[in-house]
Amino acid sequence: MVYNFKNDYTEGVHPRILETLKKTNMEQHEGYGEDRHCKEAIYLLRQKINNFNADIHFVSGGTQTNAIVISSVLKPYESVISTTSGHISTHEAGAIEHAGHKINEVESLDGKLTCKNIQSVLDAHSDEHMVKPKLVYISNATETGTFYKKNELEALSIFCKSKGLLLYLDGARIGSALCSQDNDLTLAQLSQWVDVFYIGGTKNGAMLGEAILIINDNLKENFRFHLKQKGALLAKSRIFGIQFVELFKDDLFFRLAEHANAMALKLSRSIEKMGYQFISKSTTNQIFPIFKQNLINRLSKKYGFYVWKNVDDQHSAIRLVTSWATKEEAIDRFITDVKVDF
Amino acid sequence: MVYNFKNDYTEGVHPRILETLKKTNMEQHEGYGEDRHCKEAIYLLRQKINNFNADIHFVSGGTQTNAIVISSVLKPYESVISTTSGHISTHEAGAIEHAGHKINEVESLDGKLTCKNIQSVLDAHSDEHMVKPKLVYISNATETGTFYKKNELEALSIFCKSKGLLLYLDGARIGSALCSQDNDLTLAQLSQWVDVFYIGGTKNGAMLGEAILIINDNLKENFRFHLKQKGALLAKSRIFGIQFVELFKDDLFFRLAEHANAMALKLSRSIEKMGYQFISKSTTNQIFPIFKQNLINRLSKKYGFYVWKNVDDQHSAIRLVTSWATKEEAIDRFITDVKVDF
Amino acid sequence: MVYNFKNDYTEGVHPRILETLKKTNMEQHEGYGEDRHCKEAIYLLRQKINNFNADIHFVSGGTQTNAIVISSVLKPYESVISTTSGHISTHEAGAIEHAGHKINEVESLDGKLTCKNIQSVLDAHSDEHMVKPKLVYISNATETGTFYKKNELEALSIFCKSKGLLLYLDGARIGSALCSQDNDLTLAQLSQWVDVFYIGGTKNGAMLGEAILIINDNLKENFRFHLKQKGALLAKSRIFGIQFVELFKDDLFFRLAEHANAMALKLSRSIEKMGYQFISKSTTNQIFPIFKQNLINRLSKKYGFYVWKNVDDQHSAIRLVTSWATKEEAIDRFITDVKVDF
Amino acid sequence: MVYNFKNDYTEGVHPRILETLKKTNMEQHEGYGEDRHCKEAIYLLRQKINNFNADIHFVSGGTQTNAIVISSVLKPYESVISTTSGHISTHEAGAIEHAGHKINEVESLDGKLTCKNIQSVLDAHSDEHMVKPKLVYISNATETGTFYKKNELEALSIFCKSKGLLLYLDGARIGSALCSQDNDLTLAQLSQWVDVFYIGGTKNGAMLGEAILIINDNLKENFRFHLKQKGALLAKSRIFGIQFVELFKDDLFFRLAEHANAMALKLSRSIEKMGYQFISKSTTNQIFPIFKQNLINRLSKKYGFYVWKNVDDQHSAIRLVTSWATKEEAIDRFITDVKVDF
Repeated sequence: MVYNFKNDYTEGVHPRILETLKKTNMEQHEGYGEDRHCKEAIYLLRQKINNFNADIHFVSGGTQTNAIVISSVLKPYESVISTTSGHISTHEAGAIEHAGHKINEVESLDGKLTCKNIQSVLDAHSDEHMVKPKLVYISNATETGTFYKKNELEALSIFCKSKGLLLYLDGARIGSALCSQDNDLTLAQLSQWVDVFYIGGTKNGAMLGEAILIINDNLKENFRFHLKQKGALLAKSRIFGIQFVELFKDDLFFRLAEHANAMALKLSRSIEKMGYQFISKSTTNQIFPIFKQNLINRLSKKYGFYVWKNVDDQHSAIRLVTSWATKEEAIDRFITDVKVDF
Repeated sequence: MVYNFKNDYTEGVHPRILETLKKTNMEQHEGYGEDRHCKEAIYLLRQKINNFNADIHFVSGGTQTNAIVISSVLKPYESVISTTSGHISTHEAGAIEHAGHKINEVESLDGKLTCKNIQSVLDAHSDEHMVKPKLVYISNATETGTFYKKNELEALSIFCKSKGLLLYLDGARIGSALCSQDNDLTLAQLSQWVDVFYIGGTKNGAMLGEAILIINDNLKENFRFHLKQKGALLAKSRIFGIQFVELFKDDLFFRLAEHANAMALKLSRSIEKMGYQFISKSTTNQIFPIFKQNLINRLSKKYGFYVWKNVDDQHSAIRLVTSWATKEEAIDRFITDVKVDF
Repeated sequence: MVYNFKNDYTEGVHPRILETLKKTNMEQHEGYGEDRHCKEAIYLLRQKINNFNADIHFVSGGTQTNAIVISSVLKPYESVISTTSGHISTHEAGAIEHAGHKINEVESLDGKLTCKNIQSVLDAHSDEHMVKPKLVYISNATETGTFYKKNELEALSIFCKSKGLLLYLDGARIGSALCSQDNDLTLAQLSQWVDVFYIGGTKNGAMLGEAILIINDNLKENFRFHLKQKGALLAKSRIFGIQFVELFKDDLFFRLAEHANAMALKLSRSIEKMGYQFISKSTTNQIFPIFKQNLINRLSKKYGFYVWKNVDDQHSAIRLVTSWATKEEAIDRFITDVKVDF
Repeated sequence: MVYNFKNDYTEGVHPRILETLKKTNMEQHEGYGEDRHCKEAIYLLRQKINNFNADIHFVSGGTQTNAIVISSVLKPYESVISTTSGHISTHEAGAIEHAGHKINEVESLDGKLTCKNIQSVLDAHSDEHMVKPKLVYISNATETGTFYKKNELEALSIFCKSKGLLLYLDGARIGSALCSQDNDLTLAQLSQWVDVFYIGGTKNGAMLGEAILIINDNLKENFRFHLKQKGALLAKSRIFGIQFVELFKDDLFFRLAEHANAMALKLSRSIEKMGYQFISKSTTNQIFPIFKQNLINRLSKKYGFYVWKNVDDQHSAIRLVTSWATKEEAIDRFITDVKVDF
């Protein structure tokens, strides 16, 4: 029986959510986000970010969220700046370009974007023969397991404002980022420094669902038209509402992320102690140790994971992802199985 | 306490689905349609249509399904023919045009499309200064509660083939259509006469989910790229698989539709007996009685429904929708409340 | 030798334009609209409309102009209202839908749009499940040869403003409209009542070129980005500048249109005198007489024209188009050839 | 009086074209590419490439051509591979992305694409979570003045075929490329190794116009619908026909390119002799010498050119472009003005 470390959406949904789905199942509700549960979830999220002015909408998945947010923000000739490893750059089948917008991609070793990166794009764009960069896309946690510190996000925010750029944060793994042991940022602070962001449910205990939080007033108008036109207005929206209420009414969301992080930390510390290197310094729920090929082959018989990157002829980095559902005994077993080789 | 006849997605999900979600919750699965439950659901659906060659994919909602199917089928300059009351024509916020395609709309009193309708569109399109009609869109059941008889669908199918047109059937309410007392068509027959269609879960007992069945080989290639690019590839696809297995492993899907139809029939027969007219002759789960304004006002205090169309100064048609979850006592109460006026 | 009444772009270009092209040919100029001739043309046009605040751009053709203007004005979920006979509705191969926008088409017998037409579209659109009508498209002259009187355009303008709609006038044949004997509108007045419009050169003596005049400040920003992105920023823009200077520096534009109208009027009066009917009452450069089939057959051996519409089994309306280049002897010959039948 | 080396579209049009426009001006012609001159031009071009099977269409400009060709070739999820310096990558205001397609950009020092570049993109794209690379875009001459040798183009062609990729050549400056002193490729050979390409008129003596030559049968169907929908079907298409007939009936096109190249060569040799470096080794009509800032400042008072790239604190590369209309005395003067500094 193979144990799966491939993803953080490998198991179903936190059991408490299933219980509430059952309990409320025969209630009659309006659809498309107008139900009582969505309203309660919106209230809770506004409370969490301490901003009762934010517009909040729920959507099924991350690619859909990114495409809708970005295309709702940009005019046809405007572009979005992202790292080359950004989810929108490589892992969304061209959804952003399909929506009509160029992504100005910049290289970044640790998956994070800096003011300098952004400035280099601005410098290269001068007139109407080129696109007009307008939106900055960052993910927190990033696709390589790193996250933004308070001062880094603040600097980006100030820089973007000074340049007339908008800042969008992809929070598919925001739980893991904010629960990292080295994190010094709160959800409320984060929300003040971006124009729009989303809180990912799918990768932190929900069966599906991402919450879009629009902070900047200029981006709010008629957002539901965008949602409907892109096929994102779910008929039985109660499913979103119920899940986000359960996740946020008593901070279950953060406890789940803490568990995922703790499991990843146990893995990474043990692997590090054995002398292995990593391709990025991650304290979130994705880690990328570098192993010899024959160790990878052996592990792959008992565990599911992706080979992320060839490092040299005999070594590759693999990606190990933990989640709210990861069992500690699986971590222990994996560590033991690596040790055998040691 | 208002009882809601507004929609067939007012309650949650058939309880058996919740049970199976719970039972399978901690199983580890691949995502994006590669899980065991989706595979089982695909097997069951292929069996139902007696075609093991069909490609089957699952998507969250109807608008998304229509946009993806239609844009995957058409070249940029090709158009889709639909009735003006077709869901894609009016109730999808321009999703088809947003995907780049004109809808050639034709008037239809009963919501059904005929060969003559299609021919009139072909006659009006001659050269490259106009769009090129390529796809025919029908819904079954239609938006006005009618459905296609066997000979009608066969005629459309033969006509389309003879004209080089493709035929797509929107089955958001296909359960109700196929379980109508006057229906003479099976799911397997229907599937032979279209190039692609979808079976709607959301409006017949699922919490979300529509199954796209691609019959025509030419439309199958790389369909998953379309799904991903449009943000429709759900991470925890097991949710789709589990639901469609439950709905089709013992024909629960049809039993639920039969219940919805029975409830609508009881309503419409009783209302008809009292001498009221309807704007369409429906034997599916949507009925459209014409009431006086003051009766409508009175009913609206106790029941949720949409006023569909003004008929004259003092009369309007309302829409009453029943579902798998509609309670017979609510029907009885409604009939009594209409009678009071009588 | 067949004489062609098919179109108003059958001959080349007014000879004076060729002369100026030759005279200025070896001048060195910046491209993309930054040349001296474009600047002079813009100055002249601003003078004509008595508005030095208008933004003016030049584009190669009408379909391109319509697609760019409309998509620059609308947000993704917004739609444009037009008659079914509007050029954008039927004769642009779906260019507007390709740009992502639904056209709300309304029937109109004379090709003109009324406030009532517009209100009927507004009434039918209530929420985010439908598109949001935002722009009103009219052509002047219309596709059936009619044109807007002063009070009609003023009424549309006031109505649109009161409803938060924008008004766009397609002036592919604006010369002919403003030079109709019954016209009571000036170019300057017209420009005050619309948000944006274009003056068509191609159909009134230019070899190619339409001038877009943006009146409403909100529609001006970054318009050149739209032009470039849609491939409409011509490298040797001097061609546009030179032509519009020649056409407007001494009102040649209007004299050409007057000639076209005079030729059409001579045709229509003579035909009318012989007792023939027309499908529309036109005093512009397109007329639509109804002839018997055998007369049409006979005429088609000596003249080029389109059969526009079948009227009954034995009669059809044909379209005859005159232009700046139409020769009076061809008109006389045509009349004689019709008379033979008489 | 500043002499302009900014572009190859600074002057008007070759005088012989103006003569023919005048001579044929009052001929009556069908529009939209159906005129006699277009037909003759198509015949001549087919003869030149020795392929009477090629489909040929005329379009106003290069950005429009690239957007139409690329979007007509690709399915929504397919991408195009280009160098970062490719015209479509940076200088078309995102027109390709606006048409829905990602450009997979690869770095290239000399502006040329290699099989290795392409393979690196293929290696990075594995499944439906990413776009599917399908088309290879090259420009000849490139944006940095280099061009493809016979064996290089042949290698690309064979490689593309072996990988199921299509090859598209942007010939905005194809005249200059094929007339370079080091060129060993004929137009006919080139046409055999690509699936589709275009011959640029605008930058080699025409007032506007690019000829699209579709070689691969699979790309031909309904191409005129694409042209119309994108606003590229010009009413008075005779302008295209007349120009391409003049340019190709006696190889004027190549003589004009030879002149442009000769002027550039004289410039580059003289500058090289003075010991200056260039950022690319160009034998076409664009050269990029590296000058000190104060020399650049001085030259800019007498000549128009773009500063292309900062090389270090005190040096920049400038771009000098010659054309069919460049006067040898201007070249001589420029050389003298550089020498002063020497």
